[in-house]
Amino acid sequence: MSDLAKRFIQNPLLKPADLEPSNSQLVIVSLLNPGVFVFKNKIWLLVRVAENVKPKEGYISIPKLNANKEIEIKEVSINDPELIIEDVRVVNYQGEDYLTTVSHLRLLCSDNGIDFTEDENYPALFGNGELENFGIEDCRVTQIKETYYLTYTAVSNCGVGVGLRTTKDWRNFEELGMIFPPHNKDCAIFEGKIEGKYYALHRPSSAVIGGSYIWLAESDDGLQWGNHKCLIKTRNNLWDSARVGAGASPIKTKAGWLAIYHGADEHHKYGLGAFLLDLENPSLVLGRTIDSIMQPLEKYEKYGFFGEVVFTNGHIVNGDKLTIYYGAADEVICAADFSISEILNKINKIHSYLA
Amino acid sequence: MSDLAKRFIQNPLLKPADLEPSNSQLVIVSLLNPGVFVFKNKIWLLVRVAENVKPKEGYISIPKLNANKEIEIKEVSINDPELIIEDVRVVNYQGEDYLTTVSHLRLLCSDNGIDFTEDENYPALFGNGELENFGIEDCRVTQIKETYYLTYTAVSNCGVGVGLRTTKDWRNFEELGMIFPPHNKDCAIFEGKIEGKYYALHRPSSAVIGGSYIWLAESDDGLQWGNHKCLIKTRNNLWDSARVGAGASPIKTKAGWLAIYHGADEHHKYGLGAFLLDLENPSLVLGRTIDSIMQPLEKYEKYGFFGEVVFTNGHIVNGDKLTIYYGAADEVICAADFSISEILNKINKIHSYLA
Repeated sequence: MSDLAKRFIQNPLLKPADLEPSNSQLVIVSLLNPGVFVFKNKIWLLVRVAENVKPKEGYISIPKLNANKEIEIKEVSINDPELIIEDVRVVNYQGEDYLTTVSHLRLLCSDNGIDFTEDENYPALFGNGELENFGIEDCRVTQIKETYYLTYTAVSNCGVGVGLRTTKDWRNFEELGMIFPPHNKDCAIFEGKIEGKYYALHRPSSAVIGGSYIWLAESDDGLQWGNHKCLIKTRNNLWDSARVGAGASPIKTKAGWLAIYHGADEHHKYGLGAFLLDLENPSLVLGRTIDSIMQPLEKYEKYGFFGEVVFTNGHIVNGDKLTIYYGAADEVICAADFSISEILNKINKIHSYLA
Repeated sequence: MSDLAKRFIQNPLLKPADLEPSNSQLVIVSLLNPGVFVFKNKIWLLVRVAENVKPKEGYISIPKLNANKEIEIKEVSINDPELIIEDVRVVNYQGEDYLTTVSHLRLLCSDNGIDFTEDENYPALFGNGELENFGIEDCRVTQIKETYYLTYTAVSNCGVGVGLRTTKDWRNFEELGMIFPPHNKDCAIFEGKIEGKYYALHRPSSAVIGGSYIWLAESDDGLQWGNHKCLIKTRNNLWDSARVGAGASPIKTKAGWLAIYHGADEHHKYGLGAFLLDLENPSLVLGRTIDSIMQPLEKYEKYGFFGEVVFTNGHIVNGDKLTIYYGAADEVICAADFSISEILNKINKIHSYLA
């Protein structure tokens, strides 16, 4: 096991107490998994903010957005025989699954990539409509020319899928609906067309047959997708044995498209790995790291709302330096630097190993 | 509970012994769920044929297509501690799910819609490539002008998704890849564009949050799909409480698009129901039957490879007469006539009921 991350000494960069809740009735439970982009010469984070009301003792509160985009709370006694607490994130009540928090996306910017503040000119993004009434989460941001593509997890009682919005100015957004139906998340569109086509990594999950694997899709317009192919599976007895999912948009290198991904094992411990795709034909996997390149090591990664998690869906590339921003223990936002060439050196290029 | 079906007295029309296996090493376990279409003035069935080798006593055989499209068999002792028999259809071995049979699709034609025979000029369709190595199943056939669109369940160790092939002559096929990624099946493309767009019903499934519901997708070209919307959910304490999925392409009526669908309850008992979509805006559900319109009643529907099942994905419309072809007990092929106006009369038009 090797850890290639040079963590910022300022970590955690952001914690729940640093932001105001979206309204005074609510508390921020977690800050998670930011999308990252450059806009107006600043580094921006699109932070997932998970909120709930402070629960009464002996009760669990189940939040949901109503048609007016307000959070409505259902309070359920923890002794209710129809309540099943699956983990801190998901409960089942009367046969239906619910999240314990509702997430929205908050914009913060920085000159130095370390100190992030909100700007009142750029308001937060909230779930909208019946496919987002449990919130929106874990947004990847891909810039193609002047347009930013936001692919995020849209959660509702209909299921968990991938929603798409686009913007040029981060004030006006076009809502383009759900592009990948349930159960799907962890979608990252490639930055730029390849041979005339858009490509995206995504992560469907199966209840029976198959698993939670990373797939590739292609599109002529970025809105409608087809020709799905399975690229990266879980690996028995390794750190990514239970599920894998793409991070931010893959990085174009001379060796190929370098994708950072997360993997988890049976104990829900989340680490990061990398794989490499052919530049002209991204359905061809050229290599993959065997070990993770980053694991939960620091206290803020091991303990929190959901411990033993490092999870990224946003980064900045500067020459050989890759700065990833990541959610730690599903509670705080951190950052770490990597050397791209060092990651490429760790990628096992024996293609047959991946078959 | 009402049953509107006038079953053919000749049922079952086809049973496993009526066809030859695809090769002499194999046995046909089941005939299932035919796609139906008209071609050269005949009625054709695209029957799903599920095959395996005859298992040795004390062993279970796990079939899989290899790169040469031949079925390879893994024999596992039924006492092997790494074998979990989930039901007659699915086993788990060494942590991976497998099907107990591999399916292909066989073409049979008829002048009278009752007596079906094979024609050696029209060979069977088999799974092809790594996304179909556990076979292809339950094909819906949609005709748009001279092109037939085949949407079928593609099964592999990558997961269960929807594959697309097209043909004009039923001898040459264009393989267009997977159009809906896992976990997805029961896809039916509408016959004809609506306001310039193709539409399809499909059935994603979720492991957590959501369920097995019927969704609508739209497309400019029939190959790439987006703007997914959830249309029809399961209903607690009714016959369709556990899962629902579309049948064949919806029928255009003056009242709207009439869709026949299957539903199952917690005991895996499968019946048929119907819902109605707005003609111009098929994302608008106008109504739905409360009771099923057909349930397993006959011996050939109640007992078989997987009993208590009536399942349709193919029909012929002739004026008010709807002849559905269906799989009974996952073993034999049957048919029944319905009156379209009688089904429409059973549809509950109270829209708020569906919200």
